[in-house]
Amino acid sequence: MADTATPLRVTARKLEDFTARAFQKVGIPSADSKSIAELMVRADVQGSEGHGVFRLPQYIRRIQGGAVNIRPNIRVVREAAGMALVDGDNGMGHLVMRFATDKAIEKARTAGVAWVGVKWSNHAGPASLYASMPAECDMIGLYLAVGNANHLPAWGGLDMLLSTNPIAVAVPAAEEPAIVLDMATTVAAYGKVKTKAQRGEAMPEGWMMDRHGRPLTDPQRANEGFLLPIGGYKGYGLALVFGLLAGTLNGAAMGKDVVDFNADDTTPTNTGHAIVAINVEAFQPVAEFKKSVDVLVRDLRGSQRLPGVDRIRLPGEGSHAARADRLQHGIPLPAPLVASLLQLAAELKIAPL
Amino acid sequence: MADTATPLRVTARKLEDFTARAFQKVGIPSADSKSIAELMVRADVQGSEGHGVFRLPQYIRRIQGGAVNIRPNIRVVREAAGMALVDGDNGMGHLVMRFATDKAIEKARTAGVAWVGVKWSNHAGPASLYASMPAECDMIGLYLAVGNANHLPAWGGLDMLLSTNPIAVAVPAAEEPAIVLDMATTVAAYGKVKTKAQRGEAMPEGWMMDRHGRPLTDPQRANEGFLLPIGGYKGYGLALVFGLLAGTLNGAAMGKDVVDFNADDTTPTNTGHAIVAINVEAFQPVAEFKKSVDVLVRDLRGSQRLPGVDRIRLPGEGSHAARADRLQHGIPLPAPLVASLLQLAAELKIAPL
Repeated sequence: MADTATPLRVTARKLEDFTARAFQKVGIPSADSKSIAELMVRADVQGSEGHGVFRLPQYIRRIQGGAVNIRPNIRVVREAAGMALVDGDNGMGHLVMRFATDKAIEKARTAGVAWVGVKWSNHAGPASLYASMPAECDMIGLYLAVGNANHLPAWGGLDMLLSTNPIAVAVPAAEEPAIVLDMATTVAAYGKVKTKAQRGEAMPEGWMMDRHGRPLTDPQRANEGFLLPIGGYKGYGLALVFGLLAGTLNGAAMGKDVVDFNADDTTPTNTGHAIVAINVEAFQPVAEFKKSVDVLVRDLRGSQRLPGVDRIRLPGEGSHAARADRLQHGIPLPAPLVASLLQLAAELKIAPL
Repeated sequence: MADTATPLRVTARKLEDFTARAFQKVGIPSADSKSIAELMVRADVQGSEGHGVFRLPQYIRRIQGGAVNIRPNIRVVREAAGMALVDGDNGMGHLVMRFATDKAIEKARTAGVAWVGVKWSNHAGPASLYASMPAECDMIGLYLAVGNANHLPAWGGLDMLLSTNPIAVAVPAAEEPAIVLDMATTVAAYGKVKTKAQRGEAMPEGWMMDRHGRPLTDPQRANEGFLLPIGGYKGYGLALVFGLLAGTLNGAAMGKDVVDFNADDTTPTNTGHAIVAINVEAFQPVAEFKKSVDVLVRDLRGSQRLPGVDRIRLPGEGSHAARADRLQHGIPLPAPLVASLLQLAAELKIAPL
């Protein structure tokens, strides 16, 4: 079906329809299925392939395994003027996070800033998806999460008690595209290790370490070691405090309670997130702020460069470029992904892509 | 006066009194002088020497140069349920940040979470000072700031448009000491480079880079290069978004508007900060939360260790140990610092330490 050298390209619409069909077939109501599919494909459109439709077979497997609630009662369980706590009732993370982010945006319209914590959620795709939603409403979005598998020990330790707990911040600009930072607190996200393994390539030193403290560069041996945090003990500190804010504070899993959702198809993860909406208008006129962001972006981009550097990049540039390309030309699907989606269609007895 | 091998130790009280005398002598009202002195010495007590009384001669020089307002009208200029914007009126940063942090704590008592932005402030000492204040009230403290000198270019760039914009997060525990992360977004803070220069030691590779992209290890040549961010482009992204949140959003200096307060004694810096108080009680019973933090701390500390590692540390442990030692045995003052404080006393015609 697809030539391995030239990946098949499909429209976002087609990929969304297929994804929604799969969720409907395993019992998720139609509107919810479409909502999840739309966010998953949005991840693919912005180039976050590791967090997009690539995850569909795993999500379906976990739903079939009873690990995820297909008809959740997602609701606010605690609330004050500047915050809310959302109980996701073990629903799909995309539904839970869309609800929580809408809540944060709504509250920030009057409160200026609103912090919404989330418990009993699930994997929700790339961090930037949710941080970007407030940015479309002239707000700054800040998102934190506890990752769904522990690949990081304490600094100096061996027990993998921490995940690659990510942070995303999206800041709207005027004529320039929004600044969108989306990063794991480890040097490499675990998905990058998997990609290296698939391609048969070695990892650079600095990504992983083995249990003797030696650099680990063979991705096939990834389970013999662990990821390294950015800046050594600093990245460990960031992973820890982001986990406390997104997990512990909300009564969600953190530390040894984190469930490895790659290895387990039956246990709810109690995934925790935090989404903060910061309404620019509460601080200064929106137009002024956006103009200041433009000036900063242009100063940074116009900077003198190190020898060999052809361009200064702003966080989010890669995603903006991917979005422009994929909305016009379709989303490239590598052959192994196409094969896995065909197999899924056959198993579920739904129309293929 | 002081043996170089064994630094003089003075009590916090004595150092506070001296520091307050110096501020009073240059026109800062008595109560404000004591308030600033108390926070500066708190930095020394917790081992943040580079941000404590070490800075006194520079602060006095800038006050004498007219760069800082000695009788500021620190006030809230914008406010909503979940936020406030404080105008520091170019007062000493410690006064401004104490005001802003008190405001955040007060608002979080009812709003659950309160985000307070600050403009027209000045250097305020270590980030953890302010993040720790909410933690003493059963709240989580989160602090961001724009540094007072640009030592960091965009990733791949040469123009130093960013500072080492720090983050601090303090999380209260039950029987365990609070977790207190306080870190610059660069591999090394600039103060560490200065310390290496004073001691005539080389810097490790990875701290700084020269303008040709080569490692810079001679701290005497620090002005020929720039600091490196943690995790490469990730640390650049963090420095950028923290600066947008603490600076640009508040109408404070960011990017090319940042004044190098080490080189300039006459220009107001318009320093920006953000302090967030997160009231644990709004999310769950405080005792339960603190117990969960204890469990996590003990799991991390009790982890198996890499060969050669004798102890797993939690963020803030060094500060807690310094505090215990210094409150009992006094604050060690290295000979060059004693000399500079003696000189300052002579210049100001105040009683020496």
